Amino acid sequence: MQLNIIKIGGNVINDSEKLTEFLTAFAALKGNKILIHGGGKIATEIAKKMGVETKMVEGRRITDEPMRDVVTMVYGGLVNKQIVAQLQANSCDAIGLTGADGGVILAKKRPVEEIDYGFVGDIEKVDSQFISSLLNQRKTPVFAPLTFDKTGTMLNTNADTQASAIGVAMGKEFEVNLIYCFEKKGVLSDSENDDSVIAELTPENYENYKAAGVIYEGMIPKLDNAFAAIKNGVKQVTICHAEELLNAVEKGNSGTRIIIN
Amino acid sequence: MQLNIIKIGGNVINDSEKLTEFLTAFAALKGNKILIHGGGKIATEIAKKMGVETKMVEGRRITDEPMRDVVTMVYGGLVNKQIVAQLQANSCDAIGLTGADGGVILAKKRPVEEIDYGFVGDIEKVDSQFISSLLNQRKTPVFAPLTFDKTGTMLNTNADTQASAIGVAMGKEFEVNLIYCFEKKGVLSDSENDDSVIAELTPENYENYKAAGVIYEGMIPKLDNAFAAIKNGVKQVTICHAEELLNAVEKGNSGTRIIIN
Repeated sequence: MQLNIIKIGGNVINDSEKLTEFLTAFAALKGNKILIHGGGKIATEIAKKMGVETKMVEGRRITDEPMRDVVTMVYGGLVNKQIVAQLQANSCDAIGLTGADGGVILAKKRPVEEIDYGFVGDIEKVDSQFISSLLNQRKTPVFAPLTFDKTGTMLNTNADTQASAIGVAMGKEFEVNLIYCFEKKGVLSDSENDDSVIAELTPENYENYKAAGVIYEGMIPKLDNAFAAIKNGVKQVTICHAEELLNAVEKGNSGTRIIIN
Repeated sequence: MQLNIIKIGGNVINDSEKLTEFLTAFAALKGNKILIHGGGKIATEIAKKMGVETKMVEGRRITDEPMRDVVTMVYGGLVNKQIVAQLQANSCDAIGLTGADGGVILAKKRPVEEIDYGFVGDIEKVDSQFISSLLNQRKTPVFAPLTFDKTGTMLNTNADTQASAIGVAMGKEFEVNLIYCFEKKGVLSDSENDDSVIAELTPENYENYKAAGVIYEGMIPKLDNAFAAIKNGVKQVTICHAEELLNAVEKGNSGTRIIIN
């Protein structure tokens, strides 16, 4: 059985008009589906209003205790529930989940090495059986980028990684089609040219593009997650523009396709 | 089959030590159970930090759009997920829900009459079948006091009312034991004397206590919810101290019992 797993990035979430457009398309998708959403700038904005300082190291958020509470509120509450309510209004029977809900994604607080990322979770286990049972009841799980650990704390978790881990776990039972939607048309060979989409990315040309500096910074962890998925049982992985969701699912000819062997 | 439905009030949620104590007791309860939590002062505190004004009319919160977003964040995100994660750490397989999740509690925005309460929901329908399916999977639903309507907006909803409505809906399939836990030992006949607990409240003595001014203000809507539950198929309704949860469930001799006929 087929399962579409869609990840929607933060930049679309920041723009309520684009988000509504995306959710309308997502709601229209037939069959089993799961949505994973990123956080977006709104956590930073609300933290600022509350006097909670946003600390970044090498482009990554440091989740100290006050920031953990902010992301729990904003990702798990505001963003997740707004998405769920909008999907419900579009006749999509969405159910919002963090990793803590039903214990569905257990993680471990990242050990402190050179950098202390704070309350950041590295995923240990996804309960694919519970997710399946929701799908069997025609529910559409909508995941916030949050997990938990056995001490009972919430943990901030990268949404790309979470999408990959959910894809791999569900791949044992379903033919998983994993689509990373964001604000670009795909992986670009020229970051100045929005139309320079790389149609297919293999482990070989990925290495070449990285070595040449064509693929860099934030695209690297995203693509590492994409390759991890395809190498571990996900049937198809695509990176495309949020506006191309329906084309990517129905025609499979949008964005960048991740390919192995 | 028996089902314990427990409502925990805002004052316990404001005190993290008391909340932890309560959650430890709740986690230890055997069998089917559901938790409904109130909001607590924290929404007001966070609203203040964010520069969102709290408007009250006759002791009730007016939920304008900025406040709707605050309660969605705080009740549906921060409070709900902290409770879920703590229960998970206590081996209770909790799943946090707002009314929007799985469309489980559909409401209608309260019509504007003398007062415009804003984004406040009056409950229309509880999907008891979905709640049952979670219980059958040994999950423990944990409800935030939030519902949604068909336009896709979240709605602030009184937790006492929500507990009563869930109790009534589940009462068709289960023998429901509904317990309202708060910071007093029960309904008091003398608000100055914490030990003046009224052991049993019938519709008749309730009317008498109200007429005499013994029961007043916030206790009245709480008790109206309690009576609505017992009159509509809930087997047993108790109002007791949060610290008495285990006694109330196991021995049934704590707090105030609501009785009809």
